[in-house]
Amino acid sequence: MPKPGISLEDLREKLAAFAAERDWDQFHNPKNLAMAVAGEVGELLEHFQWLTPDQAANLSAAAREEVALEAADVLLFLLRLCDKLDIDLAAAAERKLELNAKKYPVGKSRGRATKYDKL
Amino acid sequence: MPKPGISLEDLREKLAAFAAERDWDQFHNPKNLAMAVAGEVGELLEHFQWLTPDQAANLSAAAREEVALEAADVLLFLLRLCDKLDIDLAAAAERKLELNAKKYPVGKSRGRATKYDKL
Amino acid sequence: MPKPGISLEDLREKLAAFAAERDWDQFHNPKNLAMAVAGEVGELLEHFQWLTPDQAANLSAAAREEVALEAADVLLFLLRLCDKLDIDLAAAAERKLELNAKKYPVGKSRGRATKYDKL
Amino acid sequence: MPKPGISLEDLREKLAAFAAERDWDQFHNPKNLAMAVAGEVGELLEHFQWLTPDQAANLSAAAREEVALEAADVLLFLLRLCDKLDIDLAAAAERKLELNAKKYPVGKSRGRATKYDKL
Repeated sequence: MPKPGISLEDLREKLAAFAAERDWDQFHNPKNLAMAVAGEVGELLEHFQWLTPDQAANLSAAAREEVALEAADVLLFLLRLCDKLDIDLAAAAERKLELNAKKYPVGKSRGRATKYDKL
Repeated sequence: MPKPGISLEDLREKLAAFAAERDWDQFHNPKNLAMAVAGEVGELLEHFQWLTPDQAANLSAAAREEVALEAADVLLFLLRLCDKLDIDLAAAAERKLELNAKKYPVGKSRGRATKYDKL
Repeated sequence: MPKPGISLEDLREKLAAFAAERDWDQFHNPKNLAMAVAGEVGELLEHFQWLTPDQAANLSAAAREEVALEAADVLLFLLRLCDKLDIDLAAAAERKLELNAKKYPVGKSRGRATKYDKL
Repeated sequence: MPKPGISLEDLREKLAAFAAERDWDQFHNPKNLAMAVAGEVGELLEHFQWLTPDQAANLSAAAREEVALEAADVLLFLLRLCDKLDIDLAAAAERKLELNAKKYPVGKSRGRATKYDKL
């Protein structure tokens, strides 16, 4: 059984402390943080852009660790953004999963990558 | 004290079940999922692009809920990407926080938005 | 009167020759190129993410040249993507301008950043 | 011989007039426009994310026209961004092509998708 790992709430708190110690709240407004999320996603994409789907699914250990740290960057700025907007990201994810279950009923969406509004 | 909320591990499992029920693993390879993360981040940005920093920090309740669900989309695809690459996102986030503490020592980075390699 | 500068068609040709000389057509399929565009846009964003709108509008000459080269990267991959899809980007831009004129009539959209479907 | 099509300079002028008529210069500062470029690129990616490389290279006419208009959106906001920063995008693209020729000498980069700093 996998360990639950650090919770989003604990990460959120650590990030808030990290920023406060560095006096970074002045930079961490939601508009800036949304851009920072996107900047990190750009770096994540760069790891995959020239790989075939097969190569992308079979990264070396070194490449996988680089990707892991890029994915972490995305999560950390996303959490920080949510914190600044008083959004509970874990709760939002649960709400979204429920919405997705309605938007993508198994019968209609099975085996199809079609967007819900075209199903 | 805030609730810890659903764990990343629980979300990961729910997403895997959601995709399996719909036979979506055929689409969910890492390359595609990295693109999906970026697509969702684009939608997140669109909520903020024409707002001043002040407006972005003071969203209406309706806009905030829209942003919450976009942020959730980013998280869900990010988790799914990590799952497909056998990356433990919670553990990666903890590693990245430790690395950031070294890259951005308080003394050098206090009050500055400068990237670590230019500090 | 400003010079017209190099045309998109000339750029497209130069890029095709550049890729052919390096045997890069094997990497330059539309899916990969769309990701490359997004990766470059991430780098573009990183120049602006921690700046206030005023700072972003008043870059130093050095920062402006960095931004110019990032913007060029976006354009070059975008042109390459269009070339691979047999899309005439200049003609598409003209079509889009005409569509935008219909979607955003002056009377309705004056002074408003509202998306056309909510006007 | 393909037509040169509308020049970037003509597009830039048309966009400036379009924004002026709608009193949109108040929204079109470089920070906002950089976000808008990224938002449009997100929409571009969504067309490709679930396609195999083969499917992405063989779009239907309808899908290709949708992609053409998304690519146009990216170009239009990119041009608008450059205009607001007094960047001549056509000239920057030429400078970048020259730089790329130095960063990626044919001998070293032939048949390899490796980034220049790892060649």
